[in-house]
Amino acid sequence: MQKNTPFNLNDVKRWAEDYPTPFYVYDEAGIRACVEGVKKAFAWNPGFREHFAVKAFPNPSILRLLKSLGCGADCASIPEIVMAGCSGIEGNHIVFSSNETSLDEYRVAVEAGAIINIDDLTQVEQLEKAVGYIPEAVCCRYNPGEWGTTNEFIGNLYDSKFGMPEDQLFEALRQLKEKGAKRFGVHAMLASCCLSNDYYPMLAEELFALTIKIRDELGITLDFIDLAGGVGIPYRPKEKPVDIAAIGEGVHEAYDRILKANGIELDIYTEMGRYITGPYGYLVTEVIGKKHIYKEYIGVDATASCLMRPAIYGSYHHITVLGKENEPAAGIFDVVGSLCENNDKFAVDRELPAVELGDYIAIHDAGAHGHSMGYTYNAKLRPAEFMLCENGELKMIRRAQTMNDYFATLDCDAEFMEARNR
Amino acid sequence: MQKNTPFNLNDVKRWAEDYPTPFYVYDEAGIRACVEGVKKAFAWNPGFREHFAVKAFPNPSILRLLKSLGCGADCASIPEIVMAGCSGIEGNHIVFSSNETSLDEYRVAVEAGAIINIDDLTQVEQLEKAVGYIPEAVCCRYNPGEWGTTNEFIGNLYDSKFGMPEDQLFEALRQLKEKGAKRFGVHAMLASCCLSNDYYPMLAEELFALTIKIRDELGITLDFIDLAGGVGIPYRPKEKPVDIAAIGEGVHEAYDRILKANGIELDIYTEMGRYITGPYGYLVTEVIGKKHIYKEYIGVDATASCLMRPAIYGSYHHITVLGKENEPAAGIFDVVGSLCENNDKFAVDRELPAVELGDYIAIHDAGAHGHSMGYTYNAKLRPAEFMLCENGELKMIRRAQTMNDYFATLDCDAEFMEARNR
Repeated sequence: MQKNTPFNLNDVKRWAEDYPTPFYVYDEAGIRACVEGVKKAFAWNPGFREHFAVKAFPNPSILRLLKSLGCGADCASIPEIVMAGCSGIEGNHIVFSSNETSLDEYRVAVEAGAIINIDDLTQVEQLEKAVGYIPEAVCCRYNPGEWGTTNEFIGNLYDSKFGMPEDQLFEALRQLKEKGAKRFGVHAMLASCCLSNDYYPMLAEELFALTIKIRDELGITLDFIDLAGGVGIPYRPKEKPVDIAAIGEGVHEAYDRILKANGIELDIYTEMGRYITGPYGYLVTEVIGKKHIYKEYIGVDATASCLMRPAIYGSYHHITVLGKENEPAAGIFDVVGSLCENNDKFAVDRELPAVELGDYIAIHDAGAHGHSMGYTYNAKLRPAEFMLCENGELKMIRRAQTMNDYFATLDCDAEFMEARNR
Repeated sequence: MQKNTPFNLNDVKRWAEDYPTPFYVYDEAGIRACVEGVKKAFAWNPGFREHFAVKAFPNPSILRLLKSLGCGADCASIPEIVMAGCSGIEGNHIVFSSNETSLDEYRVAVEAGAIINIDDLTQVEQLEKAVGYIPEAVCCRYNPGEWGTTNEFIGNLYDSKFGMPEDQLFEALRQLKEKGAKRFGVHAMLASCCLSNDYYPMLAEELFALTIKIRDELGITLDFIDLAGGVGIPYRPKEKPVDIAAIGEGVHEAYDRILKANGIELDIYTEMGRYITGPYGYLVTEVIGKKHIYKEYIGVDATASCLMRPAIYGSYHHITVLGKENEPAAGIFDVVGSLCENNDKFAVDRELPAVELGDYIAIHDAGAHGHSMGYTYNAKLRPAEFMLCENGELKMIRRAQTMNDYFATLDCDAEFMEARNR
């Protein structure tokens, strides 16, 4: 089975004349259409807002695009808050979702006007200590420990470092109210990359029931429920994408049945990262080696430094040999980068057509947790990022790293800097 | 059981007044003593040289220190070659050990005078294509596929992307000789982090036997054997460090028995990274959270962005709570960073003394593949590095990354840069 690319071999050949591979290409039209689908699915909720998980794709061009479509930002660090702010996403359109949070991080987040998503009961005191008061709008992160009995898509929540059990959540909300908070929300993320249309509706049902309990026991009516992320994408061609309209409808049904029937209306927030940009990013790389030893290897000029998921999580990313989309498989190959680590393999035992040196390869579904998760191990420099705009223009949205960038934090070493400048 | 630190709580408190945690501290005396031990162990071989694996700890201060002790450098990329050169390690004191190598990398490596370690038979042609000729000194990387039957410390070499089977190795050497190479070596790395004193001697025995066969069949007398890396360090307090003198003696015995008895003398090279600096690096971090939910968590201000090995490989790194070295264990804790990834845990189910906010923790054995393997996921900035000099002085050898560094490759985004400067 095949996955399509929004560009072809000739496009890449043209681009590669100006820009050395490897590089990332993102499909603006795909991202736009995806966000419109999400908005339509939740249009029944007037206060709905998607706060894009900046960690998935921290780039101002993307954040400006998402802002123009009405999205906010889910930030996890000071640089992410600054990047969101410099991209026009400000105030309560930022949710600061952190854990093990420093006092400085609380200060910057509160100063930015972000909604603080509190991960732990002890953090109520830390937040107050950091800024001297409790901000008006706060959120608490929930971790039920056990969740239903039939949910194949959740991991062991008892081993998750995130969120609070119900009793601590209630105590945190009680303290926050006492300390002056006026708007409250509850956040939970109980799955990752889930392809079931039932995940958000089931999570909503859980959190809506909790909302009633919170009102009844604490006298606090929540202003929003944050369903966080967890909606998956089909990395493998055989996998079926989620039906976002059905997901929105499922949440709507639970909303009417549980909340509306009990006289509560509130805003629904989401923090999708992977779902919004994941399928619309491609890592483009050139074949620079063919090795036949105990296995067949195709060597490319990208490495795990560009895209770590296959190396560290064994993740599947589909591969297209550009210009050979319709050629039959010629064998079973490992597609590998040049790191001195034997896990630097974009694909293991993959059926691919006959490949030659100089062929270009597109690695699919690299639009989230792709570039952002890369490193510079083996002193490999980070690749450039390009937006393939709706008008067909290829626009650089991040340049490739240079050796000077790589050496930047060595400027305290006078002897080295002098040798560099020689 | 305990592991010691070359600094104490008061030192860290003093340092933390000037430099925010987290940061790395390296023990110069430890590194020096380790290199001296290696040199002594191989002093019987007049041409012996350790080419330090730069990827383990790419820092000019370290490379200058190692150069002063007679070491060369094992480089895997252009920036590593440049860093070695700017640190005084040049010419054939550099081994360029790469795989899936670009033509540009070959050009830079040959221009630097490095010994090229060829990973694959097809690369003979690539090397010649890149520079127009075959350099005088070359090395070939060997992968025997199967190796003995009793070596518990090797992985499955059939799944390793590195090196050539014997027939291809012989063909590569034949071609290289025909194309004008004058000095030859063979390289093999068949283990990683191996704590057996037998590994190097057994590997040497294998490669020395191969040396005889190469002479007899090809008429090529090797000039050096590169035993590469693979010598381990005891990450766990219960583990026993290797005996480097015994290792050197074991290689010596095989050398005399196999090579000298057959009239061959050659140079022994090693490419130890982890063994040289691993035990002498510490990640120092402050406790900023204590969380009691389904498990007990200690939150620190370092994250997997500083040290990835526990997160991605599940690696054990010993932890000392400074000032509480002699206190009894108070419970079982997970020590976690703030990344929005549930694998951001420096320790899982670890016995530790009672810890308070503001305590300082030293994470051991972070001197190799520590800082160099970090990333900026969640936009976490990279930490500073300090050398604890033999005279007790703390010398900054890499400053902490700033937001401007993090945003550097966005300078092609005029709108963002303008907002940043506002």
